[in-house]
Amino acid sequence: MDSRAEGEALMTLSREWSAKVATAPVDDWIDVWAEDAVMMPPGLPPVRGRAAIREYVETAAKLPGFQIRWEPESVCVSQSGDLAYMIERNATTVTDSQGNPVTTFGKVVTVWRKEADGSWRNVVDMWNEGPVPLSRGRP
Amino acid sequence: MDSRAEGEALMTLSREWSAKVATAPVDDWIDVWAEDAVMMPPGLPPVRGRAAIREYVETAAKLPGFQIRWEPESVCVSQSGDLAYMIERNATTVTDSQGNPVTTFGKVVTVWRKEADGSWRNVVDMWNEGPVPLSRGRP
Repeated sequence: MDSRAEGEALMTLSREWSAKVATAPVDDWIDVWAEDAVMMPPGLPPVRGRAAIREYVETAAKLPGFQIRWEPESVCVSQSGDLAYMIERNATTVTDSQGNPVTTFGKVVTVWRKEADGSWRNVVDMWNEGPVPLSRGRP
Repeated sequence: MDSRAEGEALMTLSREWSAKVATAPVDDWIDVWAEDAVMMPPGLPPVRGRAAIREYVETAAKLPGFQIRWEPESVCVSQSGDLAYMIERNATTVTDSQGNPVTTFGKVVTVWRKEADGSWRNVVDMWNEGPVPLSRGRP
């Protein structure tokens, strides 16, 4: 197992996932979460399982002007190559009642598990507010 | 490597850590964070490294009536036994300006690394608000 290569694959997967969420239908990217993934949104109880996560993201997508994107900062892969975590940043935009876009920046920790078929899936997806803008690109 | 035993050791470590933080001086429990740990408090940039974390926890401890405790909910250990994560809950109490204790409940994700000496150290410590009280004990 080449930790560095696995880590780079995960960073690429995260970037591609963010790009897909911005442009593609939910069916194209919902499976990046494992069937038993846990999402931990601020202010809510844990959202457990892919079906509940799908409901959560579909509801969020209906918010006026909703956009989310993120980028990975660092990755660490276990020696056995079956578990990894990343520190990431995100930016979420919604339109306020005056029609102005409002962007909130967040810090993110994601945990990843390698499945029997060799694919990495997200098993924990957690974020909170952090006054650190993304380093690149729009919001 | 016995994943179940390692997981149980981590759950016990987390419970003992919470008890120590409540009662013992900072020198007795600061080393549970790895030298290069990253703490991710809501609303702040990442707190990087044990020295900065120490400053953060010492400042928090001076808040009027400050108390924190937590309990682990679940644990997952990599096959190689060098990396693990836990989902936990916490409860933080401070005294408000009227002298009343105010408790905030949080969801927690912690990531752990096994060091060369065989000890587990916390490398990521992240939480956000979650309206789910601790299931046991005070407050």
